[in-house]
Amino acid sequence: MPELANDTFLRALRRQPTEYTPIWLMRQAGRYLPEYNQTRSRAGSFLALCKNPELACEVALQPLERFALDAAILFSDILTIPDAMGLGLYFVDGEGPRFERPVRDEAAVAQLAVPDPSRELRYVTDAVRTIRSALGGRVPLIGFAGSPWTLACYMVEGGASGDFRRVKTMLYERPDLLERILAVNAEAVGAYLNAQIDAGAQVVMIFDSWGGALADGAFQRFSLEPMRRVVDALRARPEPGDDGDRVPVIAFTKGGGPWIDELADLGCDAVGVDWTVNLARARERIGARCAVQGNLDPMVLMAGENAVREQAQRVLDSFGPPAPGVGHVFNLGHGISQFTPPENVSVLVDTVHSYSRRLRSG
Amino acid sequence: MPELANDTFLRALRRQPTEYTPIWLMRQAGRYLPEYNQTRSRAGSFLALCKNPELACEVALQPLERFALDAAILFSDILTIPDAMGLGLYFVDGEGPRFERPVRDEAAVAQLAVPDPSRELRYVTDAVRTIRSALGGRVPLIGFAGSPWTLACYMVEGGASGDFRRVKTMLYERPDLLERILAVNAEAVGAYLNAQIDAGAQVVMIFDSWGGALADGAFQRFSLEPMRRVVDALRARPEPGDDGDRVPVIAFTKGGGPWIDELADLGCDAVGVDWTVNLARARERIGARCAVQGNLDPMVLMAGENAVREQAQRVLDSFGPPAPGVGHVFNLGHGISQFTPPENVSVLVDTVHSYSRRLRSG
Repeated sequence: MPELANDTFLRALRRQPTEYTPIWLMRQAGRYLPEYNQTRSRAGSFLALCKNPELACEVALQPLERFALDAAILFSDILTIPDAMGLGLYFVDGEGPRFERPVRDEAAVAQLAVPDPSRELRYVTDAVRTIRSALGGRVPLIGFAGSPWTLACYMVEGGASGDFRRVKTMLYERPDLLERILAVNAEAVGAYLNAQIDAGAQVVMIFDSWGGALADGAFQRFSLEPMRRVVDALRARPEPGDDGDRVPVIAFTKGGGPWIDELADLGCDAVGVDWTVNLARARERIGARCAVQGNLDPMVLMAGENAVREQAQRVLDSFGPPAPGVGHVFNLGHGISQFTPPENVSVLVDTVHSYSRRLRSG
Repeated sequence: MPELANDTFLRALRRQPTEYTPIWLMRQAGRYLPEYNQTRSRAGSFLALCKNPELACEVALQPLERFALDAAILFSDILTIPDAMGLGLYFVDGEGPRFERPVRDEAAVAQLAVPDPSRELRYVTDAVRTIRSALGGRVPLIGFAGSPWTLACYMVEGGASGDFRRVKTMLYERPDLLERILAVNAEAVGAYLNAQIDAGAQVVMIFDSWGGALADGAFQRFSLEPMRRVVDALRARPEPGDDGDRVPVIAFTKGGGPWIDELADLGCDAVGVDWTVNLARARERIGARCAVQGNLDPMVLMAGENAVREQAQRVLDSFGPPAPGVGHVFNLGHGISQFTPPENVSVLVDTVHSYSRRLRSG
């Protein structure tokens, strides 16, 4: 494997000094890019695109051609695991993901088994290998998975939900059933992320998209603890010449601001935060436990270039000056919107790089 | 006016000692009650129900017939104000509120004017008078309005929104336009709540349903500050024999946990919090500044009676024992779901009363 030409992102995750604040964007390969939509048309569907390693590699690299991003991320979906469990993932246009066979009763829960990443999820590890090789060491590659709780939401609800009625009814009425789903999911996510690491992922991220829907107390038990099991299961980098450290892990709970202290104790290298979080306060509370990733409101990218510059600087100012043992990775607080003008992403990336360099020199 | 038979709610808001923790539920008059659905059918539509003071009174009193609730709330909608501004409120079944004439450009903003509560919103103050009189002093009556920011969201988006793209584009691109909308809204909400107070509302509540969608910094400027203007404009109780104190005000920002300190400084009597908030921590941070209202996850009411009892006790335990200068009003962390079995509400109300009495005696 070639050496990394740009390891700024990795250094920020390890809370080592960097010349500037690295940036990548959640969902950076996506519908706001015309070239993505072209490749997706060629693939036939979003799911076909995820399952074709060559095309997944093509779209994963597209944003790097346009923008000076500091990381690439595997192109995939968080629902590959429940799909591999046999739940029958499909997508309804404009309504998001659905499962043919949701998990709603004792019998369905009893049937759940951890999928073998080298069989049912082979297309994902193939995509990791293909992307890593195509990157040629330009920037690090991030692998990812949904959190056990977030997967359970989709598995029980059978799709997206506004109130999480079904999964929360299970949570309050039959916590034992939900715990069983979460145990299977935690093992599955751990094995899946380890397979991505073995295939070449240099960082892994856990997307806890729906942790913020949980009540205090329920979050700790049903989202945080299963994530901890995942983090504990993750392997060291398998590459020769590496230092034997674990591959850096980022945990991101959307709406997780109330539990930032607990998230910082997960054993992760970075905690992702959304735009409701005050970065100065987050930094203070997290201390030297891990780095922080975030947290621009994706809707800033809908405004003009001046607003993008101003708000990007605001995020950097809010995090404050670099210091030993502290790390910041710039990102949005959620995935980039399909309505984003790509030219605003250029402005964002360039502003983050130039302004954070200036903060370091001044 | 008859004296209040049950002023527990008012005493909790004033942080005076109470024999038990008072409880009422956001959206307590609503679709989970078969009798509500009957009255609504008779009215013809939700909006017709809101605009008919006799029928609005009928539904406002229905939950009090079933449950030992400690407060009644005006039956109305938060969007009466923009409707009175001429934006043309209508409802699409299953999709929520819409406006015929959303406010999206400079010209539309320039035309906005504060409606006269005694004319365009007369049906609301009539409903307040009717309900107050029908209550006959059983429990206090709460009036309410949407927050200036929450109203602006609907006015600019033209309806509900997942990402608040239009109003946030205005926020980042033309903050001056949004400020102008918020200034009109703040004045309108203040005048409207004062008219409800004059008509007999004994407590008023500001629903900031979408404050939690804002970025840190933007929340303070575009949601909190306009709410402060509303709170500052509110009048003292006009009733003879009253102590001249201002009518108690509750401010509730859904997802407002990150800003609980700032909310406690609004000058309100209580801050409403959703289920993501740890009540012990909230109590500690708020101190003697105001009371706390909340915060059971409404989905608890989907589970069995034992779960309802257990989770209600958990909320009371989490708030902790009563103490001088501290007040707790039990509520859900959001409106009650239309799928709630009414018998679970009985269990909830009775548990809150009996368990909180026990906490006081033990």
